[in-house]
Amino acid sequence: MPELLCFLNGRFIPLSEATIPVNDLGLQRGYGIFDFLRVTDGAPLFWEDHLDRFYQSAEMMRLSIRYSRDEMRSIIKELLQRNGLANAGIKLLLTGGPSSDGYQMTGETNLLISEQLIPPPPDTIFLPGYKLISYEHQRQVPEVKTTDYLMAIRLQPWVKENGADDILYHQNEMVSECPRSNFFIITKDDRLVTPAKNILKGITRKQLLAIASNIGIHAEERAISLNDVRNAKEAFITSSTKRLIPVTQVDDIFFAPFSEVSVTARLYNAFKEWELSAIHGYR
Amino acid sequence: MPELLCFLNGRFIPLSEATIPVNDLGLQRGYGIFDFLRVTDGAPLFWEDHLDRFYQSAEMMRLSIRYSRDEMRSIIKELLQRNGLANAGIKLLLTGGPSSDGYQMTGETNLLISEQLIPPPPDTIFLPGYKLISYEHQRQVPEVKTTDYLMAIRLQPWVKENGADDILYHQNEMVSECPRSNFFIITKDDRLVTPAKNILKGITRKQLLAIASNIGIHAEERAISLNDVRNAKEAFITSSTKRLIPVTQVDDIFFAPFSEVSVTARLYNAFKEWELSAIHGYR
Repeated sequence: MPELLCFLNGRFIPLSEATIPVNDLGLQRGYGIFDFLRVTDGAPLFWEDHLDRFYQSAEMMRLSIRYSRDEMRSIIKELLQRNGLANAGIKLLLTGGPSSDGYQMTGETNLLISEQLIPPPPDTIFLPGYKLISYEHQRQVPEVKTTDYLMAIRLQPWVKENGADDILYHQNEMVSECPRSNFFIITKDDRLVTPAKNILKGITRKQLLAIASNIGIHAEERAISLNDVRNAKEAFITSSTKRLIPVTQVDDIFFAPFSEVSVTARLYNAFKEWELSAIHGYR
Repeated sequence: MPELLCFLNGRFIPLSEATIPVNDLGLQRGYGIFDFLRVTDGAPLFWEDHLDRFYQSAEMMRLSIRYSRDEMRSIIKELLQRNGLANAGIKLLLTGGPSSDGYQMTGETNLLISEQLIPPPPDTIFLPGYKLISYEHQRQVPEVKTTDYLMAIRLQPWVKENGADDILYHQNEMVSECPRSNFFIITKDDRLVTPAKNILKGITRKQLLAIASNIGIHAEERAISLNDVRNAKEAFITSSTKRLIPVTQVDDIFFAPFSEVSVTARLYNAFKEWELSAIHGYR
């Protein structure tokens, strides 16, 4: 297989040759934003939503993007065509750029659009699901998709030591999100609930909230305490790469094994259908 | 002037040619640590302290350094000799290195040791001093010198708009530190007080606490509230590049103009003497 190309500041080059000067504020001061979207059957899924968020993140961090929305779409399309992968991930990365004093933004931002081979999500829901372990932490500037994953990466060995699959952040007993996914519960009266604040608003989260009512499921965005999690009937997480993944456990809270007649299953099936229509819509 | 050299993963190369592959976790996920020391009259000031902290930071973030302490000293010495600058700053930067999935550490860390020309601190204390503006924020993993300056860089325009020189972080009315310096007050009974917790322990802070008693000043590390700041007689910040800088204002709290008979002045003079002995000790 020929080497994958990426797009770096105006040029399509092999990913292995893509480098950034060491004076970049993304490297020196962790100052950057990104977005990540899944390509399935050649279609960049919900890419308008991802582009919306990418431009918003940039604005919130006062980072300029040198390309218009139309140009950005053309670049992504060309990258998809050149690399020819049916199933992949596209990452948009924007960093603070060079700094003459290592602290202030004094140059143009660096933009990298890279593609990577990722397996398509499985045809059926991922089972048995995830065990989460809670950790007291609140991400800074949570509404922006920054490159700050310091805590999540630092905690990786701890997650593994505890036999968990991922972290569930909480603060003062209120849960927020996982490092790379949104968290949902299904209440005993079959309501879909997900935190409203102090989170990154995921694209899968957004789509799922929009389609829940179509299948008669009442959705609420509101604060969720660890006690609410304890009283929940089901729980799951969402991400662009993995759709919905059932949660089997949060700390000492266990959920019944996944069932095809659960609310989670109905939402997963509805989301898969919705995703198919998005793929067809792109063509 | 010939171009400055840096040391990147085993080689001395011109700084302008130093680049890092884009898959580095420092760039992709903001995962890295650093340290910064001042070179004055050719001497790397308090470099054993800086090396102590650099190795500790690395350990706390589970990043490995491929050189021993002795090798690290030799590299810094050689860099100083090759570049021949009498007054400079040396930055040690260690990042998570390449990641095959963009999230987990799967390769060797990247180490960059760079030197930059910085003016020597002035011969007398920096006047009139700094106006600080408080901001509610607690740095994550505060005891480690990580590359996370997301909040500080994001707030730069806001600091400028408010006519301030720097930010003073606080949480629940308790102050901690500035983004790149430690904060001290002098109480009405001439005690030197600086926060004990939730801060990065600066090297100038450490040296100053050690020498205060030599000149008869009682030093305390303890929590400081914004109200304590309001009741303080003097305030200043410390950093490796700037020694002590008087604080003239924190929000609506004003301090009397700097005086040569102030406690801050006595501490500044004692620190300068101490710094001189450190320079002589290096030779």
